[in-house]
Amino acid sequence: MTTKLYCFGESGNAYKVALALTLADMEWQPVYVDFFNGETRSPAFRALNPMGEVPVLVDGDTTLTQSGVILDYISSKSGKLGGRSAAARRDILRWLFWDNHKLSTQIGTTRFLANFMPEDKRPAGVIPFLQGRLKAAYTVLDDHLAAHKWLVGDAVTIADLSCCGYLFYPEPFGFSRTDWPHIDAWLGRISALPGWQLPYDLMPGNPSDRA
Amino acid sequence: MTTKLYCFGESGNAYKVALALTLADMEWQPVYVDFFNGETRSPAFRALNPMGEVPVLVDGDTTLTQSGVILDYISSKSGKLGGRSAAARRDILRWLFWDNHKLSTQIGTTRFLANFMPEDKRPAGVIPFLQGRLKAAYTVLDDHLAAHKWLVGDAVTIADLSCCGYLFYPEPFGFSRTDWPHIDAWLGRISALPGWQLPYDLMPGNPSDRA
Repeated sequence: MTTKLYCFGESGNAYKVALALTLADMEWQPVYVDFFNGETRSPAFRALNPMGEVPVLVDGDTTLTQSGVILDYISSKSGKLGGRSAAARRDILRWLFWDNHKLSTQIGTTRFLANFMPEDKRPAGVIPFLQGRLKAAYTVLDDHLAAHKWLVGDAVTIADLSCCGYLFYPEPFGFSRTDWPHIDAWLGRISALPGWQLPYDLMPGNPSDRA
Repeated sequence: MTTKLYCFGESGNAYKVALALTLADMEWQPVYVDFFNGETRSPAFRALNPMGEVPVLVDGDTTLTQSGVILDYISSKSGKLGGRSAAARRDILRWLFWDNHKLSTQIGTTRFLANFMPEDKRPAGVIPFLQGRLKAAYTVLDDHLAAHKWLVGDAVTIADLSCCGYLFYPEPFGFSRTDWPHIDAWLGRISALPGWQLPYDLMPGNPSDRA
């Protein structure tokens, strides 16, 4: 049975996994989750993932949630996109946690508020506050990439795919590649990888469906 | 050489690690980091951790950052507080990522703004926004604990120690144990473990130092 990824185009966390499956040459098919009409709050979806989030990966008898867990599974199963030593694997895990703790979590919220929430419902003050915190995160990432081609080791790993997840989207949320030259060059290296695709080309659903 | 933990009392992320080291019966000593006077932004600290955060664990030649990575290391090294199968280890990792993505990251910010930032500098609107998002996270945790004594399996693991990290602090940030009976009972089980201590008893530095 083909591996199934529950996802929707706008989810950067799902994109990380879709990209890893693709770059690891694994067969997979997307299952569209209608997030914007509340599907992740439905009893059926909560039975699949009580945390109420995409991505969810179903691979035979194995059901996994949380992008960091799924990326680790893809890397272990395919033997690709991972580290070659215990130290490299811990370093990859370090970036995955940092991404979840400081980068993607705050971008996801900022991008949602700035693009997918009606302007009159946006809570005042939150977007600039999160953008300020994100600037500190972009600085950490850009500084590291000033001295490294990839986040860990000398080839692309799931660490890169986790951290880049939200940075390829077209909707504005305060991040501009031209402000961060080393992030920009790194995103260029990622998008030059054979098989790479943009989020809305890799997963079903995009903002024009709701226009 | 004794394992060193760079930490300060107010850091819930450091507390997770201090608690795991203690409950795993590992020898360790704290190294106080003067966060409130900017030490994590200093060149010396950035050389230790370019991400500019505590906790940092130094165990002989191994230097580790990100609480999730360190918890995983403690569990592997001690053979305690971890899962007994690949599936249990993935389930633990799932809660660690969820904690970093949804729980601790948002509590850390909310608690900081509500307690450690002068009232006239607090950005308007941010605290209630984050508290709303945290309510959804507490619901996920409480629902799971309604049916489980521990987050994974039948004994305490690093998943519990990660998710409880900020919930034992006395400073108010909008979480009250009485609102969440299953979280409350679980925190009671954790604090009944032999060797358990409160954050300010386990690590140097607390708000009264700055009063």
